[in-house]
Amino acid sequence: MQELKGKLIADRIKEECLDFVGKYNGIMPALAILRVGSREADLSYERSIKNRFVNFGLEAKDYELPENCTNEEFQEVFDFINNDPEIHGILVMRPLPKQINEEEMLKKMNPLKDIDCITDANVSGVMRGDKEAFAPCTAQAVIEILKGYNIEMAGKKACIIGRSMVVGKPLSMLLLNENATVTVCHSKSENIKEVASDADIVIAAIGKAKKISSGYIKEDATLIDVGINVDEHGNLCGDCDWDQIVLKAGAATPVPGGVGTVTTAVLAKHLIDAARRQMNLAPVDDSKDEYIE
Amino acid sequence: MQELKGKLIADRIKEECLDFVGKYNGIMPALAILRVGSREADLSYERSIKNRFVNFGLEAKDYELPENCTNEEFQEVFDFINNDPEIHGILVMRPLPKQINEEEMLKKMNPLKDIDCITDANVSGVMRGDKEAFAPCTAQAVIEILKGYNIEMAGKKACIIGRSMVVGKPLSMLLLNENATVTVCHSKSENIKEVASDADIVIAAIGKAKKISSGYIKEDATLIDVGINVDEHGNLCGDCDWDQIVLKAGAATPVPGGVGTVTTAVLAKHLIDAARRQMNLAPVDDSKDEYIE
Repeated sequence: MQELKGKLIADRIKEECLDFVGKYNGIMPALAILRVGSREADLSYERSIKNRFVNFGLEAKDYELPENCTNEEFQEVFDFINNDPEIHGILVMRPLPKQINEEEMLKKMNPLKDIDCITDANVSGVMRGDKEAFAPCTAQAVIEILKGYNIEMAGKKACIIGRSMVVGKPLSMLLLNENATVTVCHSKSENIKEVASDADIVIAAIGKAKKISSGYIKEDATLIDVGINVDEHGNLCGDCDWDQIVLKAGAATPVPGGVGTVTTAVLAKHLIDAARRQMNLAPVDDSKDEYIE
Repeated sequence: MQELKGKLIADRIKEECLDFVGKYNGIMPALAILRVGSREADLSYERSIKNRFVNFGLEAKDYELPENCTNEEFQEVFDFINNDPEIHGILVMRPLPKQINEEEMLKKMNPLKDIDCITDANVSGVMRGDKEAFAPCTAQAVIEILKGYNIEMAGKKACIIGRSMVVGKPLSMLLLNENATVTVCHSKSENIKEVASDADIVIAAIGKAKKISSGYIKEDATLIDVGINVDEHGNLCGDCDWDQIVLKAGAATPVPGGVGTVTTAVLAKHLIDAARRQMNLAPVDDSKDEYIE
């Protein structure tokens, strides 16, 4: 079985970022991370972004508010980063506390700074197949891995298990744009095993440790594991049972080191694209975008 | 085989409309139909809407511009109807001629008047599963028929053939919201017959006369035919070969008299909903919404 390591894809995106920073010397694409409160998962994601961005030649700035801040305080900070020309992308850690008016924020948000697809403009753009729309980074990471490893999508059966707004639903649209025949399964689906084991590509995005056994996979199919869970020993693991999958799948992404690794790289790629478009700069040549053998 | 006649569903929606008009005596929900040029298909759709709306107690007003009108002239008319409080819904006949800036129009459009889902707000709302979002009338008509005839969607396999922005893509989201396991096939899909004939519900939306033969349908499955085509004798027909389908399907919508009949009724339903929300009126009780046996 081929292990689809995220690092190879992330490294290539890193090169693109460094090329951008090199070409447009003096421009520092900057991400604002807006966080209310201090959930451990948010802090951990924030750390991994900041570590990554340093290496990519990009900036990530924290904007932190206490859990009990007022809506007015939140909107004031949001307005500041939304209007600041030195900030090119905004990542809002969600869910927000209930006193915050998320709709008010979304209505104001500049779609060009919305690099993780929370505004109507980008959600709609993803459905319309608009190449300029920013898809959710995790969903886009799945596409980057499949493309990067030259796994054929056109005409093939792709089965997504999970229907969230950050993975399942937008990913179904992205896969349709790649000409895959797309099936979305979820908690209410009957016979998920039967449906998934008929697919050429299975994307697991259910958030349950080791739930996807070999029965969900056709011999030699590709498995993309979006799950990030903690197993009974306290170790990170995906939605699939890796020990079973390696014996049956043709290719699969590990956890950690798979989709998650590419997700922060996609965030970086979206950020340079956002900065480029906000400053009306020409794209950097991406002709070295070759497949990994 | 059960013939899923659109009229029964449309009649029920008609009652809802008449109830609304009866309850809110003096309020006349009004649709603006904005048309540039005189394509026969547009004129025919416009006539069918106007005929229907008269019976439903609703108003449909024409706003017609010549094929060679300028963008300024178009936007001026659009602004008028978009801002007129006596207009509650807008239907724009598309595609528009190329001198018209459609993006400019969409940016301004009041989502509450966008009763056929062309603004980002409604497209995004459909993906998010927002019950207040207006879905495209044709896609919504499919759901109304399935619900009206009490055909189970939850957990069942639904296969949509076609991936347009008016049917396939939004319908996939609507069916997911009904808890179906949804597959979308299209022109680039391999083995469509095999995929479709595994489904409990097949929705044909390809626009090719009589293309869907019995090989695409599982014994006793439900077929919803969205196609409106003209056959070799000049008669209206759907995407399916009716003579074959009747021998195999458990239930199917005829063409004409199926989805198309319900589509204009859904447009009417969306219009009263739009009028109600723009005027902050309470919904009319729809407790008599019972299944057709």
